[in-house]
Amino acid sequence: MKPLDQKSIIPLYHQLKQRLDARIRGGEWKPGDKIDSENRLMELFQVSRNTAKKAIEELVQEGTLYRVQGKGTFVSKPKFEQSLGGFYSFSRVLQEQGLHPKDHVLEVKEVEPSATVRQGLQLPEGEMVVEIKRLRCAEDEPIILESSFLPKSVIQDMSVLHEVGTFSLYDLLAERYNVIVVRAKEAFEPVLIREEESILLETEVGKPALLLERTAYDTNNRPVEFCISIVRGDRCRFYTELH
Amino acid sequence: MKPLDQKSIIPLYHQLKQRLDARIRGGEWKPGDKIDSENRLMELFQVSRNTAKKAIEELVQEGTLYRVQGKGTFVSKPKFEQSLGGFYSFSRVLQEQGLHPKDHVLEVKEVEPSATVRQGLQLPEGEMVVEIKRLRCAEDEPIILESSFLPKSVIQDMSVLHEVGTFSLYDLLAERYNVIVVRAKEAFEPVLIREEESILLETEVGKPALLLERTAYDTNNRPVEFCISIVRGDRCRFYTELH
Repeated sequence: MKPLDQKSIIPLYHQLKQRLDARIRGGEWKPGDKIDSENRLMELFQVSRNTAKKAIEELVQEGTLYRVQGKGTFVSKPKFEQSLGGFYSFSRVLQEQGLHPKDHVLEVKEVEPSATVRQGLQLPEGEMVVEIKRLRCAEDEPIILESSFLPKSVIQDMSVLHEVGTFSLYDLLAERYNVIVVRAKEAFEPVLIREEESILLETEVGKPALLLERTAYDTNNRPVEFCISIVRGDRCRFYTELH
Repeated sequence: MKPLDQKSIIPLYHQLKQRLDARIRGGEWKPGDKIDSENRLMELFQVSRNTAKKAIEELVQEGTLYRVQGKGTFVSKPKFEQSLGGFYSFSRVLQEQGLHPKDHVLEVKEVEPSATVRQGLQLPEGEMVVEIKRLRCAEDEPIILESSFLPKSVIQDMSVLHEVGTFSLYDLLAERYNVIVVRAKEAFEPVLIREEESILLETEVGKPALLLERTAYDTNNRPVEFCISIVRGDRCRFYTELH
């Protein structure tokens, strides 16, 4: 193995980090594999404990590695890549990767909209909305916690919505309510996982997440859905094409 | 003032949060204004300290409010909105809001690319890149920490790059190197602010941020820039249109 370059202006921890990263990208260490211990890395690369610690720490922070208390440091699964270029479908992304999407419908209920939801749906004061709260999973791993809000005027018969675990929401809207979603606006910002979310998403409070707010419009340019999602940042990565 | 609805299924802290949010959206409380103390809110809305605390806590977490140790809780400035639909320009976004963009060039130097940068730029092993590290500010407030990496083969004369504080990088590339950027791919994910970044961005370690990785291509479909940005999540919000 090529030793690290002790004379380089690139810090040793950074060189070590690149080496470890190369092993992972090269497939030498696979997702779920335990990586060499600090002691082993110190011996292999002739570096101090601090250097080994810092290289591992950065790879943990970036989500490439994860630690299990008392067990060691392991290679993370690759993140799900989602395109923001057009209407992406979480289910389709998973299917392309040979994984089964599973949606758990947590709640379907009539609620008073928050100021944000009311504004997003352009509703008059006092109009109620239907909230559909779903936990979206890849196989059994929870990835997205999603609340869709639909104006009560759009959803006359709520019983149909219980099928949303089986059919896509937009397919149901089209077939049962004759509401065709044709475009959407999406806003997103980075946030930290909060307590309630950490339990449902099986992750830790304070981990990075993406907050998405989508407003979907029908053929009459009427906002028919306002959707708030919390996406696990350690499991998803988004991309877009700019022209 | 209308009292909170003690009988509603909507938790009191959530009702209080909506009231405070309405005051801010309505302009009654403006950015920089100090909001009512916990004691005052308890008295005004007839709620417990826990309820007042929780309402404020959530608005702080969402970035609507911020705390100053020993001084109180204040209304945050609105976030900068950036479109991801096409090539957005941070400078233009600011100018549209009547603010002056200021770029501080922190470093221009030749470096060995990391595995990520080399892969992004499709460079052979051993080829060097030029790194331009910039701190991008709105007036005097630092918002984005950005490192652009350009293949050494594209940048023959590095001295020109010092003008990047005055001219846009893409304008310089076009005029001085005859390299026209026509499209880009952008990947992004939520991360936490790290120590070095916290100092330059004048924010705290562990706050939410967006990590952007952009690859820009020229008219020959050659990757000519790989850019890694850390964007303050408490000051920016992104949006996109889906069709």
